[in-house]
Amino acid sequence: MSTTVSPLAPKSYPDMPEIQGVQFATAAAGLKYADRTDVLLATLAAGTTVAGVFTKSRCTSAPVDWCRDRLDGGNACALLVNSGNANAFTGKKGKAAVELSADIVSRALDCPTDGIFLASTGVIGEPLPAEKFAHVVDDLTFGQDGQAWLDAAKAIMTTDTYPKLATSSIDLDGETVTINGIAKGAGMIAPDMATMLSFIFTDAAISNNVLQDILSVETGSSFNAITVDSDTSTSDTVLLFATGSARGRGVEPVSSLDDPRTEVLRAALRDVMQDLAHQIVRDGEGARKFVEISVERAESDESARKIALSIANSPLVKTAVAGEDANWGRIVMAVGKAGEPADRDRLAIWFGDVRVAVEGERDPDYSEDAASAVMKEENIIIRVDLGLGDGHSTVWTCDLTKEYVAINGDYRS
Amino acid sequence: MSTTVSPLAPKSYPDMPEIQGVQFATAAAGLKYADRTDVLLATLAAGTTVAGVFTKSRCTSAPVDWCRDRLDGGNACALLVNSGNANAFTGKKGKAAVELSADIVSRALDCPTDGIFLASTGVIGEPLPAEKFAHVVDDLTFGQDGQAWLDAAKAIMTTDTYPKLATSSIDLDGETVTINGIAKGAGMIAPDMATMLSFIFTDAAISNNVLQDILSVETGSSFNAITVDSDTSTSDTVLLFATGSARGRGVEPVSSLDDPRTEVLRAALRDVMQDLAHQIVRDGEGARKFVEISVERAESDESARKIALSIANSPLVKTAVAGEDANWGRIVMAVGKAGEPADRDRLAIWFGDVRVAVEGERDPDYSEDAASAVMKEENIIIRVDLGLGDGHSTVWTCDLTKEYVAINGDYRS
Repeated sequence: MSTTVSPLAPKSYPDMPEIQGVQFATAAAGLKYADRTDVLLATLAAGTTVAGVFTKSRCTSAPVDWCRDRLDGGNACALLVNSGNANAFTGKKGKAAVELSADIVSRALDCPTDGIFLASTGVIGEPLPAEKFAHVVDDLTFGQDGQAWLDAAKAIMTTDTYPKLATSSIDLDGETVTINGIAKGAGMIAPDMATMLSFIFTDAAISNNVLQDILSVETGSSFNAITVDSDTSTSDTVLLFATGSARGRGVEPVSSLDDPRTEVLRAALRDVMQDLAHQIVRDGEGARKFVEISVERAESDESARKIALSIANSPLVKTAVAGEDANWGRIVMAVGKAGEPADRDRLAIWFGDVRVAVEGERDPDYSEDAASAVMKEENIIIRVDLGLGDGHSTVWTCDLTKEYVAINGDYRS
Repeated sequence: MSTTVSPLAPKSYPDMPEIQGVQFATAAAGLKYADRTDVLLATLAAGTTVAGVFTKSRCTSAPVDWCRDRLDGGNACALLVNSGNANAFTGKKGKAAVELSADIVSRALDCPTDGIFLASTGVIGEPLPAEKFAHVVDDLTFGQDGQAWLDAAKAIMTTDTYPKLATSSIDLDGETVTINGIAKGAGMIAPDMATMLSFIFTDAAISNNVLQDILSVETGSSFNAITVDSDTSTSDTVLLFATGSARGRGVEPVSSLDDPRTEVLRAALRDVMQDLAHQIVRDGEGARKFVEISVERAESDESARKIALSIANSPLVKTAVAGEDANWGRIVMAVGKAGEPADRDRLAIWFGDVRVAVEGERDPDYSEDAASAVMKEENIIIRVDLGLGDGHSTVWTCDLTKEYVAINGDYRS
């Protein structure tokens, strides 16, 4: 477990405005960690709608299965998250553990089990002792000041070196509506720490179909546009809850994709999700550099995205960034291996503002000094122009350092 | 550049029998390295057939383009290989350089340019000063004793810490026929060192169609079944030359896939190619462990192969191996992310002979000590049983160590 905060961490935490209809409590159930909280329980106002996006892994955790089965058009009354144990690859015991967890929360809060959403993050393959939740839920103190948000973000951390919070406020029907989110993840995916979780809350009233649409679409440009090590967890979960409490202030429900307010909400959600996604990359295991990879003029957006991810996931690109080496040959390699349309002789590559390659050759004005200066920065933009079409995509990653190997080679022991 | 030999290197070089119809010479053209050879020239007897397999990169090097254009049913009279410069991403200059190279060899050996095969390995993006070949080809001494094979294998090395040679002899029509091969590569693919080259020679007479078939098929179970870092070079080239000199000893040409001798040749070729492929993995940058990953009872062979490569390419699996950590949760993760049919509750996983997981849970008899003992070995077998069908696949990889990051972070500078 890392004890020093990532050098790429934000310098301060955002002020989190209140979101009516949500209350948080945290507790220390002692699942794995000593001397820290490892349980987050959130209560949600009656009528809260919910949308979710989950890992594409074929070996999903028991809580992912549980949440998927409860999404369709239903309401949410509570969210229970634990860190320290992922309840993944735990077979029948895992299913029993989620049932017991929901039962404990249902009795404590007097709400139906089908409205209870669950997420677990931590070691894979260890049975989750859900009975420990029973010992803590009765003594909880719920609240929602700034400290409660910070405590919530801290309770779900595993190898994270800092809690991740983001917020955005918008005007809807003349009233301020807020979207707040928390996330955990360090390494796109460290499956022991199985792995990326994010919970986002808004006081707007939004129907399930609109909520699911904006969440699914914006996941593409945020959490699905980051990679630390190309590995995919068994537990990745993003849940978006809309309490609808803003109705009390006269904000009408948003229930159609054609409602112009949907796009306003979508943009605010994107801000929050991209902010959280970047914070995950900045907490990437061993990361010392934050890298934006932008691919332009590909044959399609999807093609651009595959090429961008091929670059972002390449160990050779990532080690070159770690070594502050302006090694553009490795960008050529990663474009070439993506399997997407690319014409070597139209390719141009920039590190920051420095064009290093053009028309299938090293730039005639190439300056090793200028390119090297870019690589010494903490934030690095790599841009690739394929010269083929209109497709573009941007993804974010970090460098691959010796510390990544140390963290992941020594983790379980 | 690494100066110490990989701890996984073979303890000795094989004795390479003579192959009639091939002669080697090496020279130091001073392309990049001081005090070592960097040019290999091989002459091939009249009537030598040739087959080739090349990188799937969309950004291929100029010599790859050159060889591809000259494969179809043609004969080979010479092979020129240089190390230190890949002649990749060099635009029009790259094309001119291969033309000049072929021209120099054609004049020196009095053979047609279309029979000359070329390969380059080294830094990407630097123009190849092919005129330097002209200074060395006239003073060459050709030969083919054991030392000549070793010298040939050494001249094509880049980050390799040892030369790679393999041989297999078989009985064909009562006569001994031999297949000898050399290879270079350290890291499946380090594109600066762009990257994997192998040249294989036999004195059997084999028609182009049979030669291409056995080479293509056996590449699948050898060079395409290894991975060090999942990166794919712009220059990967495997060429197989059949001099046909064994005809002089009464060995009839093999010109049909139905000829039973084709399978004998195929098996011998597989031995040589797998041997060379394993040697490349054992020279993987920073490698300390040789890992065989075997996936059984998948829905198809191709599905098994994708799952095996997903495990073999996972940075989290590879760092766990480096840390001697029996972290089977990461195997579950890598199976899950492969996107292939898998049923969590049928999955079983072994480290060596120790079953660590079965039926979607940790093995009830799991022993951390037994699993940890396996991980301390130099050669580790990871076996996954999906319990679905008849598909199986085996791939080979190495661990991901801090040395890999150091080698690739510091390489160009």
